[in-house]
Amino acid sequence: MKWKLSSCIMVVMLAGGVAWGKDDVMSQAQATFKAIPTKPPVLKSNPATPGKIKLGEMLYFDPRLSSSELISCNTCHNVGLGGVDLQETSTGHGWQKGPRNAPTVLNAVYNLAQFWDGRAKDLEAQAKGPVQASVEMNNTPERVVETLKSIPGYLPPFKKAFPKEKDPITFDNMARAIEVFEATLITPDSRFDRFLKGNRKALDSKEYEGLQLFMAKGCSACHNGVNIGGTGYFPFGVKESPTDAVRPTEDFGRFKVTNTSSDKYVFKSPSLRNIFLTPPYFHSGKVWKLQDAVRVMGSAQLGITLNDDDDGKIVAFLMTLTGKQPRIIYPILPPNSNTTPKPSLK
Amino acid sequence: MKWKLSSCIMVVMLAGGVAWGKDDVMSQAQATFKAIPTKPPVLKSNPATPGKIKLGEMLYFDPRLSSSELISCNTCHNVGLGGVDLQETSTGHGWQKGPRNAPTVLNAVYNLAQFWDGRAKDLEAQAKGPVQASVEMNNTPERVVETLKSIPGYLPPFKKAFPKEKDPITFDNMARAIEVFEATLITPDSRFDRFLKGNRKALDSKEYEGLQLFMAKGCSACHNGVNIGGTGYFPFGVKESPTDAVRPTEDFGRFKVTNTSSDKYVFKSPSLRNIFLTPPYFHSGKVWKLQDAVRVMGSAQLGITLNDDDDGKIVAFLMTLTGKQPRIIYPILPPNSNTTPKPSLK
Repeated sequence: MKWKLSSCIMVVMLAGGVAWGKDDVMSQAQATFKAIPTKPPVLKSNPATPGKIKLGEMLYFDPRLSSSELISCNTCHNVGLGGVDLQETSTGHGWQKGPRNAPTVLNAVYNLAQFWDGRAKDLEAQAKGPVQASVEMNNTPERVVETLKSIPGYLPPFKKAFPKEKDPITFDNMARAIEVFEATLITPDSRFDRFLKGNRKALDSKEYEGLQLFMAKGCSACHNGVNIGGTGYFPFGVKESPTDAVRPTEDFGRFKVTNTSSDKYVFKSPSLRNIFLTPPYFHSGKVWKLQDAVRVMGSAQLGITLNDDDDGKIVAFLMTLTGKQPRIIYPILPPNSNTTPKPSLK
Repeated sequence: MKWKLSSCIMVVMLAGGVAWGKDDVMSQAQATFKAIPTKPPVLKSNPATPGKIKLGEMLYFDPRLSSSELISCNTCHNVGLGGVDLQETSTGHGWQKGPRNAPTVLNAVYNLAQFWDGRAKDLEAQAKGPVQASVEMNNTPERVVETLKSIPGYLPPFKKAFPKEKDPITFDNMARAIEVFEATLITPDSRFDRFLKGNRKALDSKEYEGLQLFMAKGCSACHNGVNIGGTGYFPFGVKESPTDAVRPTEDFGRFKVTNTSSDKYVFKSPSLRNIFLTPPYFHSGKVWKLQDAVRVMGSAQLGITLNDDDDGKIVAFLMTLTGKQPRIIYPILPPNSNTTPKPSLK
């Protein structure tokens, strides 16, 4: 046993990380998390086709979905910035501040539902929200359809995406195409995913210890599965209430969806995928440093005080969750016609 | 001669356009205009390298160049929308309305100078303007540099772009990289360019007649060269003053640059490249229909009233100026660090 142990330590030192041999941490991790697949999931009720993905991509980048014609999906869910806007809460129509921090679009397809409170069952339902929200894109389904129908270059891609429909340019089809495009925005091949697939060298010793702590301290109770989060609803403040700044008193979270008093301050556990790319943190966006966010979670959810060493390790682990970012060719959007509604900035 | 003529007419009919043989219109057009080259021009004082182009592309799409961290170059010069924002005048920081219509970034490198009044001698000088303008990106050079230096992932591309400099992250280098990227945003291979290169079938008969009218009526006096405009400064209202709506009385144009009274209401002739993609028109952005813009030009600049037939033909010709739009891979931007300045929305 002695020999085995020292040889193991030597390999650890040589590899600068954890090497081969039985590894309970890896086994536990493999039972708790799942690597992001290399291909997007199949959406049963909305199967992907190349035409639908292409249309969805155009719509995702088209600011003409907003009444001002200035704000696109990509404005708040910037695919070049980890799928977010790096703002406390998003800024929308009329420079209004939205109520919550924009969740990332990356890997969002793997969440059990969409929005912080899960009020949209899928990305199709989600896509219709911001388009109509007065503080976001401030548009109406009728005006969106009027706009899209006024742009001659949108008819062919809508026909291609929905070939069986006589009148394919509809608000629902807009959302369906966006959903299919968004489902392609996955970030496989993070270092942690390589670890999950059996490559122990994918994590260095600090990251490995961070993973150990992440599971041992209880973080993985809410942050597990393929998205390391996004699997359920949990009170923000299980053990201790966070400060009012971090958890604003007026935002009751899922209570607004279910009207059930036990759902006050309950939120969907966010995915921690690419978390390093997407400050600030929490639905309030009030915490900018990942280390601070880890500490808030420790005290609020687990009732523990993490020391510098521990949260440093957990942060090191979280930084291994950055995956391969999507490669997108910026879509050339079809031009207006004389009947396209004018931007409405009011 | 008779045989030659009838054979020529037959070919014209077969081709649905103008065929081979001596063609004065083509000769005149070739003497007046120039096709867009297939490769970007060499900028003598700022030579392009792949590293500089890549950095410039990142910066062009990075909203963190603005104080709100919401507005990028691409917000108002959207490469998917003909290089413009399809707004009367641009909306910037705090939802403020800018004073003039955003000119397209596409082929801007071929203009004799930048901005409607030519106050920036090149794209490098131009790039510094909107970043600092309080109604646009509302930032300062110091804060831009502070932001870029706080983002660790920007140091390697700046070093690669400016390999001889010890401290490459500067406001000037930001502008230089953006200039080099913007110089790649050219749109060769329009149907008119194919015509200029000798392919008479590239224009149909209506478009061909439109080109004839464009030259015969005098439009090409101000709109010529490679950009079909962008070659000089001309009073808006040579023959007749446009309405105050179209030419707002308070915007004196180039007068503000030169302080010379003859420069009142003088503007750079805009490029007509991709003009169909870039409504609304004029520095005021008050005219949305291309046909209306052509009529305003007829009366204001040439003192003529174009009939429906004539301006229809000219519009048909102008629509052949849409070139091949740039293919851009959306850049993945490097993440913030804990020292990155927070967005300032005020």
